[in-house]
Amino acid sequence: MNIARDWKHPEVLSDLADMRQQVPLVHCITNIVVTGFTANVLLALGASPAMIIAEEEAGEFAAMAQALLINVGTLTQEVARAMRSAATSAGKAGKPWVLDPVAVGVLDFRTRFATELLGQHPTIIRGNASEILALSGAAGGGKGVDSTASSNSAIDAAQTLARQTEATVAVSGEIDYITDGQTLIEVAGGDVLMTRVTGTGCSLGATMAAFLGAGIAPLRAATAASAIYARAGEQARAASQGTGSFAVAFLDALTLIGLPR
Amino acid sequence: MNIARDWKHPEVLSDLADMRQQVPLVHCITNIVVTGFTANVLLALGASPAMIIAEEEAGEFAAMAQALLINVGTLTQEVARAMRSAATSAGKAGKPWVLDPVAVGVLDFRTRFATELLGQHPTIIRGNASEILALSGAAGGGKGVDSTASSNSAIDAAQTLARQTEATVAVSGEIDYITDGQTLIEVAGGDVLMTRVTGTGCSLGATMAAFLGAGIAPLRAATAASAIYARAGEQARAASQGTGSFAVAFLDALTLIGLPR
Amino acid sequence: MNIARDWKHPEVLSDLADMRQQVPLVHCITNIVVTGFTANVLLALGASPAMIIAEEEAGEFAAMAQALLINVGTLTQEVARAMRSAATSAGKAGKPWVLDPVAVGVLDFRTRFATELLGQHPTIIRGNASEILALSGAAGGGKGVDSTASSNSAIDAAQTLARQTEATVAVSGEIDYITDGQTLIEVAGGDVLMTRVTGTGCSLGATMAAFLGAGIAPLRAATAASAIYARAGEQARAASQGTGSFAVAFLDALTLIGLPR
Repeated sequence: MNIARDWKHPEVLSDLADMRQQVPLVHCITNIVVTGFTANVLLALGASPAMIIAEEEAGEFAAMAQALLINVGTLTQEVARAMRSAATSAGKAGKPWVLDPVAVGVLDFRTRFATELLGQHPTIIRGNASEILALSGAAGGGKGVDSTASSNSAIDAAQTLARQTEATVAVSGEIDYITDGQTLIEVAGGDVLMTRVTGTGCSLGATMAAFLGAGIAPLRAATAASAIYARAGEQARAASQGTGSFAVAFLDALTLIGLPR
Repeated sequence: MNIARDWKHPEVLSDLADMRQQVPLVHCITNIVVTGFTANVLLALGASPAMIIAEEEAGEFAAMAQALLINVGTLTQEVARAMRSAATSAGKAGKPWVLDPVAVGVLDFRTRFATELLGQHPTIIRGNASEILALSGAAGGGKGVDSTASSNSAIDAAQTLARQTEATVAVSGEIDYITDGQTLIEVAGGDVLMTRVTGTGCSLGATMAAFLGAGIAPLRAATAASAIYARAGEQARAASQGTGSFAVAFLDALTLIGLPR
Repeated sequence: MNIARDWKHPEVLSDLADMRQQVPLVHCITNIVVTGFTANVLLALGASPAMIIAEEEAGEFAAMAQALLINVGTLTQEVARAMRSAATSAGKAGKPWVLDPVAVGVLDFRTRFATELLGQHPTIIRGNASEILALSGAAGGGKGVDSTASSNSAIDAAQTLARQTEATVAVSGEIDYITDGQTLIEVAGGDVLMTRVTGTGCSLGATMAAFLGAGIAPLRAATAASAIYARAGEQARAASQGTGSFAVAFLDALTLIGLPR
């Protein structure tokens, strides 16, 4: 079953309103490049981010938070221990979590670690086409952190990965594809400048976690986040001259989207 | 003795001019979410930030800098060693320092560490109400890094903590309260959007350190920083559409506040 | 031989166009203060940044990328191991790399490490006057991360360092000086606000790496990057009210420089 969604769909707007009302506490263990931007994205949207990264604290905190994001963009041995602890704890506490397999398929260390984390049952897996292809065991591996494949080339891999892991899989790209292995949802829109501001992809994973943290089902959570991002990207493009003002306008758009004027 | 202060008070303006003239070198060991924003706040105001975080260097550098900030937002064992070394060195060299106990009361590891650091005699302790309540030994513990208590509920705890530690204690919130255990200063103003940009609280602690580094007494240093922040928050709100443009306008306001037009 | 260059010089514009067309993958191991800003600068200019910082991955990735940046601003033992591995791997694979010796001369640990890295033959060494003076063995050591010397006071040291190491040496300041030990190139322009936004210097080193990664010779790569920065700084000043809007306008200027309107 194929469905197209955009930000104006009643489900998206209703999920956004629910998420804002609940102000979910989102535990993020993400890469050092995008930590600040990710926090600002969640705050713009009305969620409550907390970046708790120590092995001594990550497990304890994952059980308290409403949802967890694990992003392996700047994985180290130390951070990997915190991630393992957090994912295990989230699992035990029944808390949903998102895996963002940045550059998996390019580098062995993180590819092995992300594959290991699949055993901890992520609720949503969000990546670009190269990452989803690599994680599904198909050919893959992008150029650094960027995809070398278009998102539609990873649809089959996404569906296979979703069935294997029982996770919802979201492939970000010019068109975003979201699937639980049965339903396939397409979200069009956005703007190419999103690929030229660091953290737009990584913070999309965090936003999916925020929707999960508000109790929204995985397929809807991933769809709502993607649809809102696509719209904010378009609004930011219209209000910007280059990548600097784009990033600012993107946060402004997330602040205001769906609110009464 | 209760006093109200705002940015137009002659002491605040005079302390700001002194700080700018001296360009104090501020050693920051802060969390990875706000490192860049904190540096940009200090640079906007005219101070000189340096983020020196290695155990091998932190003690050496704390003795060179005019003031030190320790913020436990993303504490790890490795960073804790650097903080211990820096606080000890600052103490020996007679350099003032600020402790920001982010999320103390929520997580055991940092609560124990921040309590240990009290023994190193911070000059100023700055936190939200939940953090000050927790650090004073009263009930406490917020929601992640956010307070679940209003700032006026922590006035007694702040005064007790100030007397116990001989530090000046600053409680940030809708109204900021600053006390040395005797005098209580209120700073009103600011804007709720400050709670939706990551690092506004954390960089306030760094700003207090900058004022201390210019040789300004703790109660005045904490008051000047809070009053300037409140004003900059109001100016930023007037110049912004959402949280992205708010953060930009906030830095602009800090750049220009108190300067001749 | 002394040469003056600015952004309108045909070599600069041609090198910029070449770099943009090739979208070089630039491996950055930089400090935690400027990681996000550095990525955004490279993306604004059209390069492809990747911050790979684990010892397990840095060597593997340095051989894949087109160029490498090593910036010691927040050096730790752990990061030093990754840097050693990356520099060695870049050397073996014949990939060019840039060394940014932040605060060398101020602190022993990083001074010894940066001196050790000289043995790995950096292609370009970029620093402020104090750093270049210190690295060349002349007197030196700034105030924290800022220079206490003007850039022209380090011209001799830069030329000596270039001859000793066979690297191109770039001294950033009110005027930038770039030398391979023979030719000396001056780049004027820029704006003093560049010293009040964190990461403008550090991301200049990354930009030099991007030009190297496009196959441009070291002297031209360092010159093109410096000339483009000077111009973007001037454009940003004209479009900004304070340091916040300056940083945004600087990224916008980098996005658009040299493109047809």
